[in-house]
Amino acid sequence: MTAEHSVADDKEQAVTDEVLASFDDTGDPRLRTVMRSLVRHLHAFAREVRLTEQEWNAAIEFLTRAGHITDERRQEFVLLSDVLGLSTLAVAINEPKTRGATEGTVLGPFFVEDSPEVPLGGDIARGAVGTPCYVSGHVRCLDGTPVSGARLDVWGADEDGFYDVQYPGDRSAARGRLRTGPDGAYRFWTVLPTPYPIPHDGPVGDLLTAAGRTPMRPAHLHFKVTAPGRRALVTHLFVAGDPHLGRDAVFGVKDSLVVEAEHHTAGPAPDGSQPQGTWTSMSFDLVLVPDEDS
Amino acid sequence: MTAEHSVADDKEQAVTDEVLASFDDTGDPRLRTVMRSLVRHLHAFAREVRLTEQEWNAAIEFLTRAGHITDERRQEFVLLSDVLGLSTLAVAINEPKTRGATEGTVLGPFFVEDSPEVPLGGDIARGAVGTPCYVSGHVRCLDGTPVSGARLDVWGADEDGFYDVQYPGDRSAARGRLRTGPDGAYRFWTVLPTPYPIPHDGPVGDLLTAAGRTPMRPAHLHFKVTAPGRRALVTHLFVAGDPHLGRDAVFGVKDSLVVEAEHHTAGPAPDGSQPQGTWTSMSFDLVLVPDEDS
Repeated sequence: MTAEHSVADDKEQAVTDEVLASFDDTGDPRLRTVMRSLVRHLHAFAREVRLTEQEWNAAIEFLTRAGHITDERRQEFVLLSDVLGLSTLAVAINEPKTRGATEGTVLGPFFVEDSPEVPLGGDIARGAVGTPCYVSGHVRCLDGTPVSGARLDVWGADEDGFYDVQYPGDRSAARGRLRTGPDGAYRFWTVLPTPYPIPHDGPVGDLLTAAGRTPMRPAHLHFKVTAPGRRALVTHLFVAGDPHLGRDAVFGVKDSLVVEAEHHTAGPAPDGSQPQGTWTSMSFDLVLVPDEDS
Repeated sequence: MTAEHSVADDKEQAVTDEVLASFDDTGDPRLRTVMRSLVRHLHAFAREVRLTEQEWNAAIEFLTRAGHITDERRQEFVLLSDVLGLSTLAVAINEPKTRGATEGTVLGPFFVEDSPEVPLGGDIARGAVGTPCYVSGHVRCLDGTPVSGARLDVWGADEDGFYDVQYPGDRSAARGRLRTGPDGAYRFWTVLPTPYPIPHDGPVGDLLTAAGRTPMRPAHLHFKVTAPGRRALVTHLFVAGDPHLGRDAVFGVKDSLVVEAEHHTAGPAPDGSQPQGTWTSMSFDLVLVPDEDS
């Protein structure tokens, strides 16, 4: 290291030190900790890569585009967090490290509060195109005790790879809410999920293209499970055999969440119904841990 | 460190490793370097603070608000970079480490391409309210050689702390472009800059409030100086004595850029004119370095 380089280092470190000190009077100690850590890591990044002014401009432009493409139906910042693995990392940081609990994964940008209630065994497809899929399982505690009355929010893409909210209008399809029975069992009909690209006509898509990365996600069905006294679980059921399992654009796959889809050419289905044509079935148990806050 | 913690560490590191590997096929080696460094530092930040899901949500919401408040007149992402000191750090990283050269500082969000040309000695105030200020100096090379025909873009806030582009309409005021004469000299009239707050009615303002930080910037006049064969210089002239010099919201102050404003109660001014009422004058020399790319 030359003497001149050392002076430059000092000058850069002085900027960082001044910014860190500017957060000294932050009232909330947690915010102070988070902001000081963010500044240190952000500055370390800029110094490590010797960020050019052109690159700084490109970053501002990228964030501006992301902001302008984001609306009630499209969340480019969630996509950005997803493709940088930050969403999956946040799940890993926050989820209980309890052996036997169902692993969580990313929420994704397509969750909707207050999705339509269906009775146990009902059909949430509501016109979504795709192969009928009967999904069933139990919600249990770590010791195997069934969790009755657990609320399941379930949502997935249709055969064309789109969620209901990606279509114009207020259509709700392949999305629903149901409760487990007294034995902790749940069951519903939907359509078999298929692999699909995350929205990639915006800046995040451009980044994936530049990185030679696929925007595809392996086929999956989203679950959000809540029950009194239990920690909320946000996870996916992935369909075994999907060619994209090893390169999920958002790094959401965990081996324990991959489930075989059984294909059937005739009825009856487990619920006694007689599906017309081909149908599928998947079985997925969900194990919840106690809520530390309850 | 307990064995359980170690397993959690491994799980989190595995996420980071998978994301880093996803950039292996990036065609542009520079983009690969930048993205891998960004991922490493971003993940290190999240792991260090044990980022909660609530905080992740708050970050998404913050960026979304920043995106939606940003338009042609307002650039919240530049403000965010500014108040996190990233803009000033980028200047420090990129500017030549040449002794004797005028130091640079942040461009800020109010630069406009193609601002009105004025002749040497002209008035760029064009109706901006404030105390008249006569600004003059020379543009020189490191060895003292005058730089003739250097282009100066100059812009500042008015007495109320607002730039022309912050007003409705297409008014151009306290902003102009001029060229140095054969002796490298420049001179123009404008209004004396005053301290002002950066726009703080958005998410960046909320962050400053939460951090107990002021949104104020000390009084300054912006300069962008370009000349053939010379590296472009983006800097400010700061007014000595400003109470905000020690706590600039965007960390742009450098001692070498602080200049005394002389106050005068009568004429004549250095250009022979007879100002009505109080006027001020400032003198500021600009030393350019060779452009490495030319």
